Amino acid sequence: MSPSPFELVEVSPRDGLQNEPGIFSTDNKLELIRRALAAGVKRIEVASFVHPKVVPQMADAEAVCSGLPDSDACFVGLVLNAKGLERALATGRIDEIGAVAVASDGFGQRNQQQTVTQSIDVCQRVIGDARAAGLRAQVTISVAFGCPFDGPVGADRVVGIARELAAAEPLEIALADTIGVANPAQVQALFAEVRSAVPDATRLRGHFHNTRNTGYANAAVALQAGVPVLDASIGGVGGCPFAPRATGNIASEDLLFMAEGMGYNSGVDLDQIISAAGWLGTALNRPVPGMLSRAGNYPESVEERLADRL
Amino acid sequence: MSPSPFELVEVSPRDGLQNEPGIFSTDNKLELIRRALAAGVKRIEVASFVHPKVVPQMADAEAVCSGLPDSDACFVGLVLNAKGLERALATGRIDEIGAVAVASDGFGQRNQQQTVTQSIDVCQRVIGDARAAGLRAQVTISVAFGCPFDGPVGADRVVGIARELAAAEPLEIALADTIGVANPAQVQALFAEVRSAVPDATRLRGHFHNTRNTGYANAAVALQAGVPVLDASIGGVGGCPFAPRATGNIASEDLLFMAEGMGYNSGVDLDQIISAAGWLGTALNRPVPGMLSRAGNYPESVEERLADRL
Repeated sequence: MSPSPFELVEVSPRDGLQNEPGIFSTDNKLELIRRALAAGVKRIEVASFVHPKVVPQMADAEAVCSGLPDSDACFVGLVLNAKGLERALATGRIDEIGAVAVASDGFGQRNQQQTVTQSIDVCQRVIGDARAAGLRAQVTISVAFGCPFDGPVGADRVVGIARELAAAEPLEIALADTIGVANPAQVQALFAEVRSAVPDATRLRGHFHNTRNTGYANAAVALQAGVPVLDASIGGVGGCPFAPRATGNIASEDLLFMAEGMGYNSGVDLDQIISAAGWLGTALNRPVPGMLSRAGNYPESVEERLADRL
Repeated sequence: MSPSPFELVEVSPRDGLQNEPGIFSTDNKLELIRRALAAGVKRIEVASFVHPKVVPQMADAEAVCSGLPDSDACFVGLVLNAKGLERALATGRIDEIGAVAVASDGFGQRNQQQTVTQSIDVCQRVIGDARAAGLRAQVTISVAFGCPFDGPVGADRVVGIARELAAAEPLEIALADTIGVANPAQVQALFAEVRSAVPDATRLRGHFHNTRNTGYANAAVALQAGVPVLDASIGGVGGCPFAPRATGNIASEDLLFMAEGMGYNSGVDLDQIISAAGWLGTALNRPVPGMLSRAGNYPESVEERLADRL
């Protein structure tokens, strides 16, 4: 059976690093991006254009963009409003805009000073303006599976938000489990409901965090349900500054290991991503949450097996 | 929709602790068992009856058994041979014997000095003798999804082993991903193949490790495929002394969180298991791999949410 294709969006330079306690240098971000590209990543979230006082880790967004290598990969910039879009366009290096709608007022107010309704409105305008400027544009619905402040989020609400966003004709709508509370049955149900509510031309994307060890289970059922694009971060680093106790994205290397075993192929080289995760752990000076860089690929080489026996 | 029942077998006192670098005291083991029982666990692997020189952590198997509280729960003892069965029977406190067959010669030789064929033969005799002595008896097929020494294990081999074991009429056959290399598609396929190869009366059980972050995904699809029993360990502690780099079982609390969200109910109290995982981390003097004891349940209480905002 030939593998089914899926697309991995590498989010470590943005979602992976925005919550780091120390500042991760621009040079290190560019090295991380170069390593992802070398492994075959074709789409990568390189920065978010938010106020530097609010997210200091993203203060060098323009510097990162000016250092980006020549590549046929798609460079994604996250924007939360018109000002962010303006900054992203000014870099001349962003190929795709990622807008962010919220599924709860409690999270919206803290993350981006917007209610649910305001965030939909802003996203529609940002998507339209980005497309008018010749860029790709997609949108993520944050806390789609549960909010840290307002509690559970109803599927009906998320479906309604997705329908309104789809009217702006984004390339893609992502359902994000921002705080890692989703379970596989909920993922199956919500993706199915949103799929049937938006036009066939609107692709769906999954964004999962592993805060409560459900992230990979959610990714597995999303793949089996036909979701063609998943976000992940090298090393599984990440977290949201505005979501208490939120921890890392699912790790790119652990996702690739599982997905390849299941017969899904992204074209990204697993061993190079494992190596990048090891490098990132060294650069951050702490072990990354992803497990492949510790446990090793499987089946491992005969040499590795022999070394273990000694 | 009313929840579907599933059974959790708590394995922390045995599989969870057998690989600890330091000795975990008999008193602490009994406290762990008492906490599991208080949370509503109805089946618990309390010890393995192996040679104390080979697995020093299990040298107090008899002492643990003599300290077991009165309970209507089922106390399970792991045995690898006739001598182990004899010791388990002598305690008078073991309700159920867990035998272990292996799916590869490489692992079998290291784990229990048996080839695949020898392990099947021993299991058949142990199951028969345990049943003759009035005990329940089940069997686990180790490294059913891959061996650390011999590499990938073919599904045909596992199905053949299961068929031979089923002839001894065990209560249950478990498929164990001893080294955490299985993926959800493989779990779906292997459980389906084994299900159709053994009598309907033979229950199937899943035993997953989270070494490469696929453990919970494997558990999720097993539940959805109708596997009625899953092993898990409080805190996700564990590992196999004879499988290089093997790390913990899936954590009972993280499994319960996911399973309950998916509509499966074990009757075990999640908050009490989270609390037991916190206690275990303190007793072991290191954070446990399970994530619920750090991230908290969800939806959490209003009090917790308010505390986070301060």
